[in-house]
Amino acid sequence: MVLDTNKDEANSDALAALFEPRSVAIIGASANPERIGGRPIAYYLKAGFKGDVYPVNPNREEIQGLKCYPDISAIPGTVDLAILAIASTAVATAVKACGEKGVKVIVLFSAGFSEIGEAGDAMQVEVDAIARSYGIRILGPNCLGLYNGDNGNCPTFTSGLEGGFPRAGRVGLITQSGAYGTHLLTMSKSRRLGVTKWISTGNESDVTVAECLEYMIDSDSVDVVGCYMEGVKNPEILIRALKKARAAGKAVTIMKVGVSEVGSEAVQSHTASLTGSDASFQALIDQYGALRAYTTEQMFDILYAFSLSPRATGGTLGVLTVSGGAGVLMADAAEELGLTLPAMPEETQARLMKRNPLGAPRNPVDVTANALNDFPLVSENLDAMCNEGGYDLLVAFFTSLIGSPVHGEKLLKVFSDGIKEQGKPFALIGQAPVDILEKYEAAGIMVFEDPSRAVAALSALAKFNESFNQADADEGELPDIGNIELPTEKIAEDEAKALMLETGIPVPAEEVVDTPKQAVEAAERMGFPVVIKIVSADIPHKSEAGGVALNLTDASAVESAAVLMLKTVKEREPDAKIDGLLVAPMIGEGVDLIVGTQRDPVMGPVVMVGLGGIYTEILKDVAVSLAPITPKRALSLIESLRGVALLKGVRGQEAVDINAVADAVSRLSVLAVQNAQTIESIEINPLRAMPSGVIALDALILAGEQAE
Amino acid sequence: MVLDTNKDEANSDALAALFEPRSVAIIGASANPERIGGRPIAYYLKAGFKGDVYPVNPNREEIQGLKCYPDISAIPGTVDLAILAIASTAVATAVKACGEKGVKVIVLFSAGFSEIGEAGDAMQVEVDAIARSYGIRILGPNCLGLYNGDNGNCPTFTSGLEGGFPRAGRVGLITQSGAYGTHLLTMSKSRRLGVTKWISTGNESDVTVAECLEYMIDSDSVDVVGCYMEGVKNPEILIRALKKARAAGKAVTIMKVGVSEVGSEAVQSHTASLTGSDASFQALIDQYGALRAYTTEQMFDILYAFSLSPRATGGTLGVLTVSGGAGVLMADAAEELGLTLPAMPEETQARLMKRNPLGAPRNPVDVTANALNDFPLVSENLDAMCNEGGYDLLVAFFTSLIGSPVHGEKLLKVFSDGIKEQGKPFALIGQAPVDILEKYEAAGIMVFEDPSRAVAALSALAKFNESFNQADADEGELPDIGNIELPTEKIAEDEAKALMLETGIPVPAEEVVDTPKQAVEAAERMGFPVVIKIVSADIPHKSEAGGVALNLTDASAVESAAVLMLKTVKEREPDAKIDGLLVAPMIGEGVDLIVGTQRDPVMGPVVMVGLGGIYTEILKDVAVSLAPITPKRALSLIESLRGVALLKGVRGQEAVDINAVADAVSRLSVLAVQNAQTIESIEINPLRAMPSGVIALDALILAGEQAE
Repeated sequence: MVLDTNKDEANSDALAALFEPRSVAIIGASANPERIGGRPIAYYLKAGFKGDVYPVNPNREEIQGLKCYPDISAIPGTVDLAILAIASTAVATAVKACGEKGVKVIVLFSAGFSEIGEAGDAMQVEVDAIARSYGIRILGPNCLGLYNGDNGNCPTFTSGLEGGFPRAGRVGLITQSGAYGTHLLTMSKSRRLGVTKWISTGNESDVTVAECLEYMIDSDSVDVVGCYMEGVKNPEILIRALKKARAAGKAVTIMKVGVSEVGSEAVQSHTASLTGSDASFQALIDQYGALRAYTTEQMFDILYAFSLSPRATGGTLGVLTVSGGAGVLMADAAEELGLTLPAMPEETQARLMKRNPLGAPRNPVDVTANALNDFPLVSENLDAMCNEGGYDLLVAFFTSLIGSPVHGEKLLKVFSDGIKEQGKPFALIGQAPVDILEKYEAAGIMVFEDPSRAVAALSALAKFNESFNQADADEGELPDIGNIELPTEKIAEDEAKALMLETGIPVPAEEVVDTPKQAVEAAERMGFPVVIKIVSADIPHKSEAGGVALNLTDASAVESAAVLMLKTVKEREPDAKIDGLLVAPMIGEGVDLIVGTQRDPVMGPVVMVGLGGIYTEILKDVAVSLAPITPKRALSLIESLRGVALLKGVRGQEAVDINAVADAVSRLSVLAVQNAQTIESIEINPLRAMPSGVIALDALILAGEQAE
Repeated sequence: MVLDTNKDEANSDALAALFEPRSVAIIGASANPERIGGRPIAYYLKAGFKGDVYPVNPNREEIQGLKCYPDISAIPGTVDLAILAIASTAVATAVKACGEKGVKVIVLFSAGFSEIGEAGDAMQVEVDAIARSYGIRILGPNCLGLYNGDNGNCPTFTSGLEGGFPRAGRVGLITQSGAYGTHLLTMSKSRRLGVTKWISTGNESDVTVAECLEYMIDSDSVDVVGCYMEGVKNPEILIRALKKARAAGKAVTIMKVGVSEVGSEAVQSHTASLTGSDASFQALIDQYGALRAYTTEQMFDILYAFSLSPRATGGTLGVLTVSGGAGVLMADAAEELGLTLPAMPEETQARLMKRNPLGAPRNPVDVTANALNDFPLVSENLDAMCNEGGYDLLVAFFTSLIGSPVHGEKLLKVFSDGIKEQGKPFALIGQAPVDILEKYEAAGIMVFEDPSRAVAALSALAKFNESFNQADADEGELPDIGNIELPTEKIAEDEAKALMLETGIPVPAEEVVDTPKQAVEAAERMGFPVVIKIVSADIPHKSEAGGVALNLTDASAVESAAVLMLKTVKEREPDAKIDGLLVAPMIGEGVDLIVGTQRDPVMGPVVMVGLGGIYTEILKDVAVSLAPITPKRALSLIESLRGVALLKGVRGQEAVDINAVADAVSRLSVLAVQNAQTIESIEINPLRAMPSGVIALDALILAGEQAE
C-alpha cells in the first residue's frame, strides 16, 4: 500500500487545532443563526466555548453580540481554525488570506468542488495546492464540520445540534457524508448516547476519516467510535488507528457503504471476483478487530453497549426471563451469533428449583411471573447466575414490568444492586418511560425493546473482547522466500510454476515439448498415467480451449490426445501463440483448493483461499485477508471456510495437510507484497492438498500496468 | 400429514364465540383490578363491551360495580364465554359447571398444566376430556386470553392493555407465549400500530395459533397478521389459512422460535440433518407465501408497512434523497434484498438536471439541500419518479428536516400531496415528534429512522405482491406413479433401486452376484469399466465400510476388488448381513445431486434436493419443500440452489437435464406421500444428472415405526 508521508503522526498538531483550537474565525459570518455562516456562531455561544470567536464579514460591525472583522487580517490575535462559509469561487482567495494570517486548519463548508465533477475537481486541486503551500490542513470541502463536547468547539452548521447538544459521554462519531452525519447526530440524541466528538469529512481533499479515527483513539475522552464511510483513502492510517484502538481496549465499529467490484481488469482472473474492494475492506477490519455494522441501528447498538458496559470476559450468556417464549427466542439468537448458553451447575439448579418449583433454573433461567410476588427470587437467581453460573454476559427479559407503576421501582433496585460490582455486561429487555431507562443506564444496564438486538449487542461485546485479547498475540514470522522479482510481461504456465517452486510451493515434475511424438517420449520417461496441457500465455482458461487432457494411460492415448489438442486449440483460439505441450505425471488424490492474490487499488495485495475451483466461484466459500500473512493467520483463514470439514477428512477420506496449505498461502502472500507495484494477481488453481504436502497444479500470474 | 377432522370449518362457531361472545362469565372474579380475576372486568368496563359481563365469586354480591353470582349456574341468561381465573386444581369442576350451563368456549388462564411436566399433563388431559364431552372449546391453559377491538371483548389479564388499548386498525396479533404476547402488545402501542385483535394461545390443549390465524384471515376487520409461535400443532389448518390469506391478498408474517433437529432417528440418514423441523416449517411458509420474521422488529416493520401502504406492484425502487451517502446506503440495502433500482428515463434526467444542476437525477435521485430553498423541486422530482420513472416502491431520505420547525409542515404537505393517488408504497426516513409522524401515517406514508429497515419493509411488500400473484398460478399436475406400497422391512439397495424404477426414476442396469468369480462373469456380460458395491441392508454408508469399488477396467481388477471388498466389509461391519455384490456399468459424466424425502413428525413428508453428497452436507446448499410437489415447483426449488449454475454448464461443461431432475424430485415426493404412514426417509444419493436424463446411482429407503 502507498504510504503518504505527508500524513504521519507529526500532523496530529493539525488535528489538535481542528478539535481543540484556542481561537476561531468564521469567514462569511452571518447574523442569522439559521444560515450556514450564522449557525456555528450560535452554537459556539450556546456551547460556552472558552476560546476566541471572530466573525468575519466586511458588511457588519457586530454579529450575534460579537465584534465582527472586515477581513481575517484585521483580527488582533492568532487564529488556529478558520471556518469558510462562502461561495466556492471565493475560497481560493480566502485560503490565501488564512495562510498569511498563520491559520493552522480550515473547516471548508463550501460545496461545488469535486462532488460536482470536472470543474469542481480543478478548483479543489487549486485550493489544495494553496493550502499546502502555507502548511494549512483542510477539513472538507463540502463538509458539515465538527463538534467537540469537551471544549464546546462547534465549527459546524449541522442541524443535528438544533434542540441541544448530545449528552456527555465517551462516544466518537466520524462520518464522510454530511447529511447522513446529521442523521446520526440526531439519532444519537434520541438514543441517549453520550457523544463527545462528531466530525464530518466531506470530500476529504485532505483530512480523512482514518486520521480523525486515529485522533479520537488517541484522545483520553473517547472509548468507542462509530465511523460511517464510503471509501478508504489511506488504509495505512486506518490500520494504525485500529491497532492502537485494539491495544488500548477501545472499540471501533464501521459502517461502509457503496459495495462494488474491484475494477475492469478483474474479469481476467477468477480471484478478482472474490476479492473486490468490499472483501478487502472487510478483510482489513476483521484483521484489526473492528466490527462492521451493516445498518445504522447495528452501529448505534454497538456504541450503546460498549459505552455503557464493562468489558466482556468471554462469550457465555446467561438468560434470565419471566417468559419461557422469550427465553427460547434469545437462546436461538445467541446460538446464531456464536454465543453459548451453558447450563447452571446441577446443585444450583436443584437449590433454585426447590425455592421456586414452577421455575426453570437451567439456562435460560425462567423465574416466571412468580417473581412479581416474590422479588428476592429475582436477586437470588441473578446472583446465582453471576457467581455460580459464571456467565460472561447477562440478559434479562422483564418486558413492560420494568416500566410498571407497581413493579418498576422495585425491579430497578433489584437489578441495579444485583449487577453492581459483578463487572458483567447486562442487557435488560423491557419497555419503560425515558426517565426509568435513564436510571438503568446510569447503573450501567442497557435496555432494549427487541431481544434479538440485545443479544446482538452482547455478542459484539464478546467479539471486541476476543479482538483485544489478540492485540499482542504471537502471530509468528513471515516465511523467508528470498527476493523474487516477478516478470511484468505475460507469464506462461511453466514459467509461473517455476516461480511457485522458487517461492517454496511444490509443483509437479514436468516437461514442455513441441510435438505429439515428443509428448509420448516425455510420458515414457516419467511413467503413465500422465496429463497434457497446452502451453500459451494467451489462453488463461485452458479447459474451454480444449487444452487439457487427463489420465492418459499409454503411448497411443498420449499421442492421439496431443494431436487432437493442437487441432482443437488452433480452432478455438486461432490468435493464441502456442509455446508447446506440457507433459506431467498424474498427481495423487486429495482436495483441490484455489489460492490467489489480487491487488486492490486501495488496500494493496489481498490474499484469498477457497475450496475447489467451481465451488469457490459459485458458492463463494472463500476467505480473504490483506497480504502478507503468517502461516498462523493463513491457518485461521482456512479454518473459517464453511467447507473446512472437507480438508479434515469426511466419510472415510483421509485428512489433508492443512499446515502445508497454510504455508503455501502465506508464501504466496509474501510474493504478492514483494511485487505489489507490478503484479495484478497470482492464482494457483488448483492447489492440490494431499495427506502429506501440497502441490500447485496450475498457476497464473497477471501483471498489471506499471504502477507508480 | 394427519388431518384432525374435529377442527374443520364447522368449528368456526367456537372461534366466533371466543372473539365475539354476547355474554361472558368470569369464574374467580376479583374486586381488585390488579388481580388476574379482576383485570378482565376492568378492561371490559373500560372497553365499553356491549354484551353481558357476569362476575362469579361466592364471597361477593357485587364486583367493580357489576352484580356478582355465587356460581355459574346462578347466572340468569346464557353464557357464551367463560373465563377461568382459578387454581389449576379447581379447573376440572369449573369446566363441568360450564358444560352444564351450555358455555361454548372457555378462556383458561390457570397455569400448572402441561408446562410443568407430568403431573400437569395428566390434569390437562382430564380437563380436555371433560370439555370435549360437553363440546366446549378451550383457549389455554396457561394463556393470557385475548382482546378484540371490534367489540371490546377483553377476556385477558395481560398488562399490555394497562395505560390504554391499541389504536384502531386492521392488524391481528397471535402469540403462543403469554408474556411475550404482552411484550408485543405493548410494542404495538409504542409503534402506533392499529391492532384490532390480539390472542395468546398458551399450552394449546385445544385452540391453536393456526385456528386463530384462519379466524382472523376470515375476518373482515383484519388485513395483516403477525404470529409468534414455538411449534405448529396443526399444519393442515395453517396451510388452509395461509392459502386463504394469499387468495384474499392478506399478509401473514410469522416469527417461529425454538429451532431444533427432527429427532433421534434422523442421524441414520443424511437427509435428516437437512430437513429438521425448522427447515420443514420454512418450506411450508415459503410455499404458501407467508414471510418469516427473525426478530420482533422485523415482524413489526412488516405489520407497519402492510397496514399503512397500498399493495406493491413489483420490485423496482425509486430512491429520493437529500444526501448522496444515504442514497448509496439504501441502494446497497435494496440490492442485498433483491430490489432493483432502474435509472430514470434519459429525457427526464436531462430535464431535472437542467432544473437543479447540483442534483443527481439518475436513481438514487439526489435533490441535495437545495430542496430546502426550493420546495417545488421535491414535488417535481417525486412526481417524475412516480410517473416517468414508474417505480413500484418509493423511499425518501429527509432526516430530521421532516421534524424541523422551519421545514416540517411544508415537507408534510409536499409528500402527502405528492403521493396521494399514486397508489405506491412510500417510506420516508426521518426523525420527528410523534404528532408529525402520525400525520404522515394518516397520509399512508411510513416513517423510519433507519434507512435499512425502511428498505427491508418495502422489500417485504414486494414479496407479498409476488406471493399474491402466485395464488392461482398454474402449478401443473402431479405425476401419476401408480399405487406403490413400499415394504416396511429393511430394504436393500437393489430392491430400493427397483422401486425407484417403478416410480419412474431411471436406475443402472445391474446384477447382484455372490462371489468374485460371478462378479467377473457379470462384468464381462455388461462390458468394462464397471463398479462393484456391497449389497447389505445393514450398511447405510457403503464407502466407509469399504463396500464400493469404482472404474474397474478388466477382469483381474474386478476379481481382486471383489475379494478385497468382501474381506474389508467383514472386518469393518462384522454384524452386517451380506446379500451379495452388485455389479453395474460405470455411468456417463454429469453432475451428482442428492434427492430425498424425510418424514417430519409434524408436517409429514418433506422433499429436498441439493448438489453432490459432500457439498450438500457441508455447505448445506439444499432446497426443501413439503411433499408432494409438481415438476414445476421442483424446478423452482432447483433454481433456488446457490450452486444451480453447476447444472447449467460452467467452464465448458455441458448443461444437464434439469427437467429430468425436477421430474425425479416430483415423483419421489409423490412416492413419499403415498407411504407417509410407514416410511421415514427415502434418499437417492447420488442422482446423476446428465446432458440427457438422470439416473439414480444409489437409493436408500428407511422405514419408520408404524405410525397411527
